[in-house]
Amino acid sequence: MPPSIAVIAPGSMGSAIAARLVEHGCKVPTLLEGRSEATRRRAAAAGMTGASAAEIADADLILSIVPPGEAVALAEQLATVINRNSRKPLIVDCNAVNVETIRRIEDIVLSSGARLVDAAIIGLPPKPGTKGPAFYVSGDAASDIAVLGQLGLDLRLIEGPIGAASALKMSYAGINKGLTGLGAAMVLAATRAGAADALRDELALSLPHVQARLANALPDMLPKAYRWVAEMREIAGFLGEDHPAALIYEGFARLFEHIAADVQGQGTEAAQLVAFAERCKAKT
Amino acid sequence: MPPSIAVIAPGSMGSAIAARLVEHGCKVPTLLEGRSEATRRRAAAAGMTGASAAEIADADLILSIVPPGEAVALAEQLATVINRNSRKPLIVDCNAVNVETIRRIEDIVLSSGARLVDAAIIGLPPKPGTKGPAFYVSGDAASDIAVLGQLGLDLRLIEGPIGAASALKMSYAGINKGLTGLGAAMVLAATRAGAADALRDELALSLPHVQARLANALPDMLPKAYRWVAEMREIAGFLGEDHPAALIYEGFARLFEHIAADVQGQGTEAAQLVAFAERCKAKT
Repeated sequence: MPPSIAVIAPGSMGSAIAARLVEHGCKVPTLLEGRSEATRRRAAAAGMTGASAAEIADADLILSIVPPGEAVALAEQLATVINRNSRKPLIVDCNAVNVETIRRIEDIVLSSGARLVDAAIIGLPPKPGTKGPAFYVSGDAASDIAVLGQLGLDLRLIEGPIGAASALKMSYAGINKGLTGLGAAMVLAATRAGAADALRDELALSLPHVQARLANALPDMLPKAYRWVAEMREIAGFLGEDHPAALIYEGFARLFEHIAADVQGQGTEAAQLVAFAERCKAKT
Repeated sequence: MPPSIAVIAPGSMGSAIAARLVEHGCKVPTLLEGRSEATRRRAAAAGMTGASAAEIADADLILSIVPPGEAVALAEQLATVINRNSRKPLIVDCNAVNVETIRRIEDIVLSSGARLVDAAIIGLPPKPGTKGPAFYVSGDAASDIAVLGQLGLDLRLIEGPIGAASALKMSYAGINKGLTGLGAAMVLAATRAGAADALRDELALSLPHVQARLANALPDMLPKAYRWVAEMREIAGFLGEDHPAALIYEGFARLFEHIAADVQGQGTEAAQLVAFAERCKAKT
């Protein structure tokens, strides 16, 4: 019988992962208490079933897929319920948290008698017919969730302790989303100075792949900028407060905050970024 | 007769540009007073001739190619001498300075009766048999230096005022060198957390061109890191002190400072970056 795999919460990533597990015959309970009507509908569409915290604790695996700021609180909530249970699930923390945070979560989970796998989801939510996203896992218990690889997830084992998968997520996002941040900052500054077309031409000549990437990534980033603020601060925390590079990611957090405010407001800078991306595509 | 084109100073870029102009029949005077024996030898090898400031002021064009922190002082020195001359040369400021700085330089140059072209050199110093680097120019007088295009330089006119070429240089370097900085910060952090190989694998799969670029750019950056510190602060200044993204480039300045100190010292982190680059190349 396929395992029972709880997925919390039914956000866009969580519900898409859940849909894939359901396709492969799993029962996927989730917490719906206090959630909006839209979230309940998304969960139902994915084939997830509403459950109590006690029922969640009875699952074989629990996938934690929440905004980074909620990861510790969810671990605490689960640990409280699991503490009372004789059956102990395996918790898979899939959140974009830094290494220090995942170690805190490990302490919380272990104290309840459950075990923890550190996971990093890299890529967009799975769509029917596609393979991704990559689902990296690390920690002693990682080899015990090999079953996820037979349930439609692109599972990749990292030989490393709790923290290795989170470090991968942080460092990959630091390069990938960081590049989008650099592009946004510099395209806006070049536009203000009347040098946007020259920048596009020079990128096309000497960094064509970077230009092509920015042409897609800049418009894609706009609706997500508000979410990237906290993720950039997790990366700063990953580097450590005193590390000189932490300042880079605090800067990205403020830049995405600024862009998110523009998207919500006048949209002047958002329009400049879209215009640049369109001129890149027109040329290539 | 080919014009007389002074080039100050005979650094690695200045002397390579000078050598190309000399090849095309130009006389290339430069300032050698107080310079090291190595610099004098490099200037002589490029076919440059030592000259007094007064002789420099008699040239048709003067190319200013100095570290960004020396650009204003050189403009002041030249303006003082040109002020006394009836003949007024055209000064081409090729330095990696921000828009505010080039406008200050414009004021200084115009007050001496000379004219200014804003230029941005993008790429490595020219080598025999190659075309580059790109030599972007802007400002009202830019069309008057078209002759440089017949003297072996890859001249590209930007239709924009003084500041547009500098803005291009800043924004291009902000993306190009910024990407190298992101890569360095994240590769070092992933290495500390035991996730460097996983990072290499995920980059190879989902951002192969970024991985290939970092494999070359990380080792190339090490001996230049000390120079990039001031350049990153110019980019922060280009964005404006109060702009949220300025913090990103202050962070890069501190990161490159940290790396330059490591290169001068133990070299532990430098070795980690080289090892990552080599493992990228071994895989691809």
